[in-house]
Amino acid sequence: MGRPISIEISTHKKKKPLENERGFGIHFSDHMFIMDYSEGQGWHDPRIIPYQPISLDPAAKVFHYGQTIFEGLKAYKTGDGRVLLFRPQKNMERLNRSNDRLGVPHIDEEIALEALKALIAVDQDWIPEESGHSLYIRPYVIATQPALGVDASTDYKFMIIMSPVGNYYPEGVNPVKIYVENEYVRAVRGGIGEAKTAGNYAASLKAQEIAKEKGYSQVLWLDGVHRKYVEEVGSMNVFFKINGTVYTPALSGSILNGITRSSIIQLLQEWNVPVEERVISIEELFAAAKSGELEEAFGTGTAAVISPIGELNWRDEKAVIGGGVTGEISSKLYVTLTGIQRGLVPDPFGWMVEVEI
Amino acid sequence: MGRPISIEISTHKKKKPLENERGFGIHFSDHMFIMDYSEGQGWHDPRIIPYQPISLDPAAKVFHYGQTIFEGLKAYKTGDGRVLLFRPQKNMERLNRSNDRLGVPHIDEEIALEALKALIAVDQDWIPEESGHSLYIRPYVIATQPALGVDASTDYKFMIIMSPVGNYYPEGVNPVKIYVENEYVRAVRGGIGEAKTAGNYAASLKAQEIAKEKGYSQVLWLDGVHRKYVEEVGSMNVFFKINGTVYTPALSGSILNGITRSSIIQLLQEWNVPVEERVISIEELFAAAKSGELEEAFGTGTAAVISPIGELNWRDEKAVIGGGVTGEISSKLYVTLTGIQRGLVPDPFGWMVEVEI
Repeated sequence: MGRPISIEISTHKKKKPLENERGFGIHFSDHMFIMDYSEGQGWHDPRIIPYQPISLDPAAKVFHYGQTIFEGLKAYKTGDGRVLLFRPQKNMERLNRSNDRLGVPHIDEEIALEALKALIAVDQDWIPEESGHSLYIRPYVIATQPALGVDASTDYKFMIIMSPVGNYYPEGVNPVKIYVENEYVRAVRGGIGEAKTAGNYAASLKAQEIAKEKGYSQVLWLDGVHRKYVEEVGSMNVFFKINGTVYTPALSGSILNGITRSSIIQLLQEWNVPVEERVISIEELFAAAKSGELEEAFGTGTAAVISPIGELNWRDEKAVIGGGVTGEISSKLYVTLTGIQRGLVPDPFGWMVEVEI
Repeated sequence: MGRPISIEISTHKKKKPLENERGFGIHFSDHMFIMDYSEGQGWHDPRIIPYQPISLDPAAKVFHYGQTIFEGLKAYKTGDGRVLLFRPQKNMERLNRSNDRLGVPHIDEEIALEALKALIAVDQDWIPEESGHSLYIRPYVIATQPALGVDASTDYKFMIIMSPVGNYYPEGVNPVKIYVENEYVRAVRGGIGEAKTAGNYAASLKAQEIAKEKGYSQVLWLDGVHRKYVEEVGSMNVFFKINGTVYTPALSGSILNGITRSSIIQLLQEWNVPVEERVISIEELFAAAKSGELEEAFGTGTAAVISPIGELNWRDEKAVIGGGVTGEISSKLYVTLTGIQRGLVPDPFGWMVEVEI
């Protein structure tokens, strides 16, 4: 690749968390990847170094104007000791789409993927082997130019950090209760909702906190224009099975183009389960819940894979879905996707990429 | 205050930029203020230290979920050597309103103001004396907890940095050309547009870049719901004088509640110039421009104070405003506000706060 990755091995190995201590994104592996960008020089100096604090000028643009994007994916260890990644090229493609929206210079997707694999190889003993556990990988870019003018940064860092994780939701694959958000809005068409960037998550924290206080796991986001059409659930895409057909909100510009989302659509098509991407109103969902046609609902994302929804609360009206138990399609999708990811079931789409270790 | 600010004076004094080298937010003074927050302990350890890089864990939440807010204000030096701040309490009140929206714990406004004054006193020789120049002050909060779960951080840093600045717009008080944005949206009701937080600025960079390439200084933002009503211009509030009355978009939840904005409304009322806060459609503006009733337009903010608008481009239709020269009200507001800020004209509202140096 012309730009070999330099590797500095840590002399101090950290203590690894036990299975029940893992949580999500709390513990980090022994090493990290960094590559710098500066105007004129482009991306340069790709390196794996011991995991350590980074030093930034207090005026670095990331602190002030949020010019930052990220990705999330997982490495899985199979029973026979292989290390697998789930569609990592898709993450790198989206990384660059997010970069476009935020005015961040493109990153060579092959170099990013090579960096990711090299880092995993160095820290391979950090990949958990227990079912449902994995090594969560967080590639991200931050703007580092120390200047307060409101324009795109001249300098950036692309970094990758990794964290051994348990199940994202302590509830596991049991259905969660979701609060339909009427006041706060996550994103709107023309905004940055489609990009995986910090601002969307910052915008979601307050509503999420209020929902938690009310006893709900996540918020269901409605569109910013009409406050009527379903967009996402928490930081996941969302699916509804109504009268035998599975629906998910069409990509409108304010919805994240989830890799788990598109994989689920492919799986359902493969299984000949009717699946449609279209606008879905909250009234329609509640009407379907009342008539008994809303059979299943679930969120999808890298962290949780599938998170069944057992109850929706919209303006204090409650809709119980599928009797509050995990539905058949939700279960089958969870078992199949996690099975493919861990090399337990065939991978008909060639999704998994093996990391040489 | 029970929590005295410790002060460590820098042994190395930086070279100050010359008048023509200042720019905006490029050079920073010799010291900075930091105060830490951790759950249980609250805000603690307020300190002034030499300006220096800060060290953060790569998983610090600010890098990933953009939980950060900021303020901007200026210190002015008067002809008789006094140091004045413009309505700094208003910045601290807004700081906490932004904190609320982003799930950041409140900061004692008196302590923040005291910290700001102490820092200015230490770096008082950094305040430029030339007309139109000042010391720009940037208080800000960043989330520092090293954890990738999407929820509010348990740890924060509140910091203040300062930069000697020239005029924000090289064009000075000459009218600028503005591009009306049809595709991209800065913020929407229910979102974070009213908060001074990184995500809003991140969302604006792309459109701003495109406008610059087309030869325009700034973007005029339309509302996210109808893409019809005027919201802000670049990172400023906006005013229009139509047929003798001055209009500014009403605070809708997606518009920043500007301190310069509210000061201008007060000044106009004092002068018996009719002023109204209401929704303003872009069609209305173009109709008024065609009929010759759109007499003046200007952006307002801490950085530029008043930035007259000489031309609007909406869908390739151009409206020249006031013959492309700075209007009477724009000029009078600029002269009066900057005069009050530098202690050159009476301060009828008691806006200025003197810093003991």
